[in-house]
Amino acid sequence: MIDTPSLVDQYCHGVLRTELGLGTFETHLGAHLGDRPGGPSGLPAAGTTFFDTQTGFAVRRWCPPLLGLEPHCPPARYLARRRELGVVEAGRRLLRAAGISTYLVDTGLAGDLTRPAEIAAAAGAEAHEIVRLEPLAEQVADTSGTVEAFLANLAEAVHGAAVNAVAFTSVEGVRRGLAVAPEPPGPGEVRGAAGRWLAGRPAGGRLTDPVLLRHLLWIAVTAGRPLQLHTRDHDPALLGAFAAATTGLGTDLVLLHAYPHHRAAAHLTVVHPHVYADLGPALAHTGARAAAVLAEVLESAPFGKLLFSSGAHGLPELHVVAAGVFRSALTRVLGEWVVEGAWSHADAQRVATMIAAGNARRVYRLEPAVSPRW
Amino acid sequence: MIDTPSLVDQYCHGVLRTELGLGTFETHLGAHLGDRPGGPSGLPAAGTTFFDTQTGFAVRRWCPPLLGLEPHCPPARYLARRRELGVVEAGRRLLRAAGISTYLVDTGLAGDLTRPAEIAAAAGAEAHEIVRLEPLAEQVADTSGTVEAFLANLAEAVHGAAVNAVAFTSVEGVRRGLAVAPEPPGPGEVRGAAGRWLAGRPAGGRLTDPVLLRHLLWIAVTAGRPLQLHTRDHDPALLGAFAAATTGLGTDLVLLHAYPHHRAAAHLTVVHPHVYADLGPALAHTGARAAAVLAEVLESAPFGKLLFSSGAHGLPELHVVAAGVFRSALTRVLGEWVVEGAWSHADAQRVATMIAAGNARRVYRLEPAVSPRW
Amino acid sequence: MIDTPSLVDQYCHGVLRTELGLGTFETHLGAHLGDRPGGPSGLPAAGTTFFDTQTGFAVRRWCPPLLGLEPHCPPARYLARRRELGVVEAGRRLLRAAGISTYLVDTGLAGDLTRPAEIAAAAGAEAHEIVRLEPLAEQVADTSGTVEAFLANLAEAVHGAAVNAVAFTSVEGVRRGLAVAPEPPGPGEVRGAAGRWLAGRPAGGRLTDPVLLRHLLWIAVTAGRPLQLHTRDHDPALLGAFAAATTGLGTDLVLLHAYPHHRAAAHLTVVHPHVYADLGPALAHTGARAAAVLAEVLESAPFGKLLFSSGAHGLPELHVVAAGVFRSALTRVLGEWVVEGAWSHADAQRVATMIAAGNARRVYRLEPAVSPRW
Repeated sequence: MIDTPSLVDQYCHGVLRTELGLGTFETHLGAHLGDRPGGPSGLPAAGTTFFDTQTGFAVRRWCPPLLGLEPHCPPARYLARRRELGVVEAGRRLLRAAGISTYLVDTGLAGDLTRPAEIAAAAGAEAHEIVRLEPLAEQVADTSGTVEAFLANLAEAVHGAAVNAVAFTSVEGVRRGLAVAPEPPGPGEVRGAAGRWLAGRPAGGRLTDPVLLRHLLWIAVTAGRPLQLHTRDHDPALLGAFAAATTGLGTDLVLLHAYPHHRAAAHLTVVHPHVYADLGPALAHTGARAAAVLAEVLESAPFGKLLFSSGAHGLPELHVVAAGVFRSALTRVLGEWVVEGAWSHADAQRVATMIAAGNARRVYRLEPAVSPRW
Repeated sequence: MIDTPSLVDQYCHGVLRTELGLGTFETHLGAHLGDRPGGPSGLPAAGTTFFDTQTGFAVRRWCPPLLGLEPHCPPARYLARRRELGVVEAGRRLLRAAGISTYLVDTGLAGDLTRPAEIAAAAGAEAHEIVRLEPLAEQVADTSGTVEAFLANLAEAVHGAAVNAVAFTSVEGVRRGLAVAPEPPGPGEVRGAAGRWLAGRPAGGRLTDPVLLRHLLWIAVTAGRPLQLHTRDHDPALLGAFAAATTGLGTDLVLLHAYPHHRAAAHLTVVHPHVYADLGPALAHTGARAAAVLAEVLESAPFGKLLFSSGAHGLPELHVVAAGVFRSALTRVLGEWVVEGAWSHADAQRVATMIAAGNARRVYRLEPAVSPRW
Repeated sequence: MIDTPSLVDQYCHGVLRTELGLGTFETHLGAHLGDRPGGPSGLPAAGTTFFDTQTGFAVRRWCPPLLGLEPHCPPARYLARRRELGVVEAGRRLLRAAGISTYLVDTGLAGDLTRPAEIAAAAGAEAHEIVRLEPLAEQVADTSGTVEAFLANLAEAVHGAAVNAVAFTSVEGVRRGLAVAPEPPGPGEVRGAAGRWLAGRPAGGRLTDPVLLRHLLWIAVTAGRPLQLHTRDHDPALLGAFAAATTGLGTDLVLLHAYPHHRAAAHLTVVHPHVYADLGPALAHTGARAAAVLAEVLESAPFGKLLFSSGAHGLPELHVVAAGVFRSALTRVLGEWVVEGAWSHADAQRVATMIAAGNARRVYRLEPAVSPRW
């Protein structure tokens, strides 16, 4: 009844190029749990398996039929069929069934992952690059001999990347950078922090200095591309001061991974005109509960402020699950409101198209914005 | 099946006296987003409109039929019809259809808004005044020559207002006053703060000093009227220490605008006998989701601790939407529990009456309290 | 359709041995509100009753039929029937109808409550003891003459208790101990705190010193039994650092009483392999809303990480309500997912058995763990 013809996946990663056994596949099912201080070990608790999660059950619901098996078949049977087809053919079948026409791909994760052009070819879709700020700064540090050169090269690298990237993203910026203060650090403070970091840095050392992370975010704010901020495990209310400080500068902020703080993230999109919220992993990882979580986000967020994504990483199954779960949740939630008379069908269809693709096309300037019709 | 005959709106504002065009109407749809540090601009994000929100859709659902149009008609058609009837007649039709028999009106907002007596006349209802503490203190500062006079006049003004007001309310008190400490500040501290504020204060300067705000709250606590605290954007858990400090003093605290922290607000009503929670804007602004939000509040709050309000400001449409959404949510949630056998019909009817009006009549002494019948 | 044959109640207390009048019964309905700083008075707000809560309505739904009355009969009629049968016979009928085969009982609360062996006899079930750390430390303080003796006896008492106890529990540890720091305090710090506490302690004085509470938690971590942490009123995110500090030590942490922060608690079970979450009071106290709250916890928590409990204290009605509400919620939530095709029936049945009993049997080593079948 409500149609979501093709999706823009506004945040995802590439997929693994190698054949996977059951154990490796299971590890990647739990991989969205990474990037956290103190956890996780990458192993499920004793006596449990990552298949016994909403993500595991959702993969078993949506993916086996795409490879010719019955839904909910045992993991071992699914993995056998996947290897029988080969990683390339299985990936092609899965991605082509996802119904995603445009992928925005964060290329900043380590690992043998397909690049945007490969995803586009496998999926029969468009793909664009999102540049992750921390690895960019680390590469600049690898090749800069002095503090002055590092800081000059850093600004140049970010502005240079903005030419081809559709967006920037930062994982450590919120947790380590903005928890301290929202304002751009002063030049002396930045030089001091850069000097200390470069002096003590081993080869390949990660950027964790709060002053440099904040400096990096503020360079990105001036580079004219939307800035995607990972809020995972943190109440996005921490971002309120940064949102206030960046008001009116012309750069949109997109909040990623807010669950279980998705209502607080939605609320920030109400208060700040340039703040947007991502829907992806909050739906993909909650599986059978995705409609309920989506409905919570739709309580307060203006409908022009929400963006679909998969957040998928490593397994094309995760792109498929995210798209299937999102479509199913969106048509169910909006369809019920139409049946109850709370929304008109025309409005529901219009909002569905906005969240599935239109808002992302406007924010990332993928194509002229579709304005609301009355 | 479950009846909510007439509502007490325990917190609202007056309506605008002037004819409104589409743009001004839209701005007022988003006006509940105001009163926040750092935001909002009063403008929707580029490419979006405040009509594309739950509030906008709820206005288009509930209001056009009251002016003789079909539900969900385009905003421009609705505004044309509204101007055709004139602001007075449109307002009269809307308010008389809201089913609210008593309005408690916060008169402390700036703007050309109708006064309680005008609302009563337009709606064919009763209306009482809620006194907002900050403007009262600012008026006292305008007319007091010395620190001693200011402090004496302030206490007298609050106690004098208590004669006719049904309640006091504070917007800045929680954010600026109680975030620091819950206890009443000492006399020397108050005198020092008053001296600094009065000395540096431009004509009409707003009260933002944390010590004076805290002092003002504690005067209100001794004035014998319920104190309504705006918790907007703040976790009401911050209020726990103030609630503990005011236990047993005989003054009830009513938490306003707790969404998205409405469960935490409900939880405070469990822990503290003198703490109550407001339901209004959390339902009015979430539209099609109001039943779900109401159900969350009903998880833990004792049923004698919840109060309906509209929180409406400027547009009589917002009073109408709040009442319609609340009634629809209440009968749906309680009706389902009766069908499931979880509640008896008699209990559901009794609880509906308590939340719609009975609790407010008891807390604000509008009429002898209705005690639970067994 | 989905079967939950017998439950393990992983956290409860004994029941009162005396006959109860209406007022005392009502007080115990509200008793789960205790153990909080600044509240509660033990009395409902003026004009309200603890019967007008989800817990009150749930007791009136589930219990009267077990004593031969109609559901939702007035409290006075129920209490009269309860006295007619006598406290022993009423308790026997209620507990035998609860469908709980194993009770884990926290024996550390004051009051004339039945011991584990009595609960087992009344219910026709097994019962095991959970040792509460604070009273254990207070008993050791009562009988230790010097700081050195106290500290030696404390370690010995905890390790001694571990022989027969199935778990340890702490109420004050999170609020007072871990809010400051997660690490074990140093020996000098512990000796200093013990000296001050013992010197200033009146007879029967409660343990509230943050350093000693932290020391006590860390002794328990080394004692080889799961450690149950009360998180009531606190965001369990505060526990993240303690969870990180105890990773890999072989002791499981079980989060109790997380509502309204149950999603944050579930999220901690995702991030930390040794962290588990309790479902009990979050369901028992939300009554008609239990299915919705359970569904929220099931959004992110791995299904092997959730444990049923009643949290019941004083009234066998609370054990009955917890079990009835849990069973009804679990079969409803999982049953809907099966009907929608999101889960297979076999998976739903397997997960139901895990949460009802299997996970607790594995974590508390009540019997060999049941491993997932594929």
